[in-house]
Amino acid sequence: MRTPDSLEELIQALRCLPGVGPKSASRMAFHLLQRDHAGASRLATALGDSLARIRHCARCNTFTEAEVCELCASPRRDPSLLCVVESPGDLVMMEQTQSYGGLYFVLMGRLSPLDGIGPREIHLDRLLRRATEGGVREVILATNFTVEGEATAHYIAEMLAGKGPGVTRIARGLPVGGEIEHVDAGTLAQALIERRPA
Amino acid sequence: MRTPDSLEELIQALRCLPGVGPKSASRMAFHLLQRDHAGASRLATALGDSLARIRHCARCNTFTEAEVCELCASPRRDPSLLCVVESPGDLVMMEQTQSYGGLYFVLMGRLSPLDGIGPREIHLDRLLRRATEGGVREVILATNFTVEGEATAHYIAEMLAGKGPGVTRIARGLPVGGEIEHVDAGTLAQALIERRPA
Repeated sequence: MRTPDSLEELIQALRCLPGVGPKSASRMAFHLLQRDHAGASRLATALGDSLARIRHCARCNTFTEAEVCELCASPRRDPSLLCVVESPGDLVMMEQTQSYGGLYFVLMGRLSPLDGIGPREIHLDRLLRRATEGGVREVILATNFTVEGEATAHYIAEMLAGKGPGVTRIARGLPVGGEIEHVDAGTLAQALIERRPA
Repeated sequence: MRTPDSLEELIQALRCLPGVGPKSASRMAFHLLQRDHAGASRLATALGDSLARIRHCARCNTFTEAEVCELCASPRRDPSLLCVVESPGDLVMMEQTQSYGGLYFVLMGRLSPLDGIGPREIHLDRLLRRATEGGVREVILATNFTVEGEATAHYIAEMLAGKGPGVTRIARGLPVGGEIEHVDAGTLAQALIERRPA
């Protein structure tokens, strides 16, 4: 019993989604064809529309439908602060804190030489121009605390050293509500190293 | 910061996939727009194509691009055996055993009154016609051993009782290579109840 061609192609195509292997892809394809034709055609349309409409903001590189995103265009943001994040998802999380009023630069990735992602792939040349074009007082590095995120932050700090803006890194330490008994040793060690006056 | 409309719509549309919540949907959308435009447009095309081409086999109800699927049309299958499965994925698994040479009927679901899935939704009227139209000697119930699968098997067995074909259920018991020490008590109890001459 051969799977019909168009079904097989749908299963293969679904595997481009992150975290979707052959089993999940089959399950998704069967679900769409069995129970959710409306959802499937909505998804097809949404994919086409977003591919056609979404581009990168000329200022901060995040996803936008305009030349410059809403946030970069806002007169209410502080242009002297520039926060560097890895992805638009991280930007959304930062905004949800409601404790940051500056602008962003979205790398759309992180340095990862093994995956062929170098300084050019994450647009560090644009970041350098953006950070030094005047008006930026402080660059806040908010990449992840993973090996790649740390390496990226380190690289950017080196790149910007002595170029004008101050460079800071968001703090590591215990999470809010965190209990010392339950936190991992690495985090606790960092919290100790980076202790500050009480 | 508002997410651009077409991106927001893509995130919502991805949630029609089973097992995909808001976090995964965002991650998938960002991945497609950041790294895999080719994959996204392939997926859009595959969705459109399969929606347009895939239909249900007039005989066994599985997915096919033809009026009658390859398997039902094959002269090499034994038409006196009819195996009832819940989904096309189950049919594929049955075929992989290479130990069944009969035909199939695919319910495209299971009885689940709480979800509004009754005998009509899983086409039991068609199954009844198919099983009693002559030529079928034995109906093999290969629904899952879940509560719904068992209920469905029970319902079909009742429906077909005295209508002509014999009705059997695939065996429950220890899996091949299974060790008594590690199997769950329910399975072991069933294996004991359904013991057979050695």
